[in-house]
Amino acid sequence: MTGRDQPDTTLLGPGDDAAVVRAADGRVVASSDMLVQGRHFRLDWSTPEQIGRKAVAQNGADIASMGAWPTAFLVSLGCPPDTPVAMLDALTDGIWAEAECLGAGVVGGDTVQSDQIVLSITVLGDLRGRDAVLRSTATAGDQVAVAGRLGWSAAGLAVLAADIGGHAEVIAAHQVPEPPYGSGPVAAEAGATSMTDISDGLLADLGHICAASGVRMDLEPAALEPDPLLVAAAAALGDDAVVWVLTGGEDHALAATFPSGAELPDGWRRIGVVLPDAGTGAGGTAARGAGVLVGGREWTGAAGWESFGANLSG
Amino acid sequence: MTGRDQPDTTLLGPGDDAAVVRAADGRVVASSDMLVQGRHFRLDWSTPEQIGRKAVAQNGADIASMGAWPTAFLVSLGCPPDTPVAMLDALTDGIWAEAECLGAGVVGGDTVQSDQIVLSITVLGDLRGRDAVLRSTATAGDQVAVAGRLGWSAAGLAVLAADIGGHAEVIAAHQVPEPPYGSGPVAAEAGATSMTDISDGLLADLGHICAASGVRMDLEPAALEPDPLLVAAAAALGDDAVVWVLTGGEDHALAATFPSGAELPDGWRRIGVVLPDAGTGAGGTAARGAGVLVGGREWTGAAGWESFGANLSG
Repeated sequence: MTGRDQPDTTLLGPGDDAAVVRAADGRVVASSDMLVQGRHFRLDWSTPEQIGRKAVAQNGADIASMGAWPTAFLVSLGCPPDTPVAMLDALTDGIWAEAECLGAGVVGGDTVQSDQIVLSITVLGDLRGRDAVLRSTATAGDQVAVAGRLGWSAAGLAVLAADIGGHAEVIAAHQVPEPPYGSGPVAAEAGATSMTDISDGLLADLGHICAASGVRMDLEPAALEPDPLLVAAAAALGDDAVVWVLTGGEDHALAATFPSGAELPDGWRRIGVVLPDAGTGAGGTAARGAGVLVGGREWTGAAGWESFGANLSG
Repeated sequence: MTGRDQPDTTLLGPGDDAAVVRAADGRVVASSDMLVQGRHFRLDWSTPEQIGRKAVAQNGADIASMGAWPTAFLVSLGCPPDTPVAMLDALTDGIWAEAECLGAGVVGGDTVQSDQIVLSITVLGDLRGRDAVLRSTATAGDQVAVAGRLGWSAAGLAVLAADIGGHAEVIAAHQVPEPPYGSGPVAAEAGATSMTDISDGLLADLGHICAASGVRMDLEPAALEPDPLLVAAAAALGDDAVVWVLTGGEDHALAATFPSGAELPDGWRRIGVVLPDAGTGAGGTAARGAGVLVGGREWTGAAGWESFGANLSG
């Protein structure tokens, strides 16, 4: 991971016992994810470069969803001793390509032998003087909004699993998500009251905001119409594209709440409203599980992709 | 990893998309290590709590060797689905126990399914306004010094592998190293010209300083006498305790260079001197490999433990 151009936030890059990264406002945002071969990626469905890009992207989205900018990545890799060097080089190229898109460095990590390929990434980020936007601070009456694509990665995964060919756009979305990184800081600047990234599925991740904030939400079905590309893929597979929109993870779109009446910043679209929690609300049944309604009703379909339960190799 | 007492450097702990950690002087030191079951630890030789402590200790030593204090750990864990919850709880207890010794928090991470247990730790640290002490800045004439134990972990590993019983002190040193964390910042304050932690073995890690600084070193054999406990273990095994001192890794002692004539701070002992590199020096043969001589001669024994090559299960 040496020999690349580091951004000026990298005060000391790889090669010593530790790296030193600028944290200009006296705080650093940090998040880690671990990806395991056969569970989070398959080498027959993604190239090593795509796997590297995706690993960085999902970590970068965690920083964006706090309203911050990624500054640096640390990448640890476990792999079998017979792993081809060309594969590792391509993985590294993907990691660097996505980091460079973000203006971030790759400043350290570790390489060890393991039976499976395991990729563990930590990302550091810079809030640039703003408060972090949490999951726990949504308020009844707020607007619910999203930035980025919903259901595309799930559609791509379904197409790959069924091996039906075609549908290149959704396959590409599964292989390399395109989180709307810049929309995170923009939302923070515009006064977002809560935010998260959509890694487990829209309903599941909005459910995290509901649980943390003690609220419910009602989503507007008309705002959740699947893209025609998803409708086409679903028709070919006999699937329901709406399920992908509501429960598909890994697109790493951003979901946030904004004050009632606030104008949403560029890149954001309204999809619903925050309700009081069932206990303090104006009657009605308590929302099941996550507390996220769709068109005023509980969603009774699949509950959303969860990284611990899903198994791409199963 | 929630529900524990976080230090005041943890501005936002686990539970959101990312944590926020204080970086008071506008910089953050960061390092990552990955540990794999069967390669870096064995559940029959260490308890889960010891494995957790050791994983944190080896990361903490990387921060200390920059002259910094650890502030926060992010811990990602891959494990098989049938891993007992009690084992994970004990691992977490060990992680927290060692982090608390350091006054650091455990602020985030990830948990996923994998075939082997894989532990990936990232540590963040605070230089408290000082420059980082690098590997690349040793100068001919400097004193070479160490803080902490040499060869104890290797002795303990040898005793465990031979299954001869007894020798509890060196076994404990292998199970849970005791890096002299505080000696890192103390050395930085006292003007250390270079520093590293000893994870691969004294000769190997001093060799990293030599390579990075373009120098050689000559170690004084009298300063490297093995502790009587190591001599006793070696006698029982028919091994050579000096080899453990020179090549044993995982004690996470600290090695540093100090200006000629400088008084060494508490906890540090002189073990040798920095020489000019062979090209600019006053003749003599170029040092083999690492450039670290012992008593003026090249060391011809084992070259030091390397994490990628060693295999505890082999």
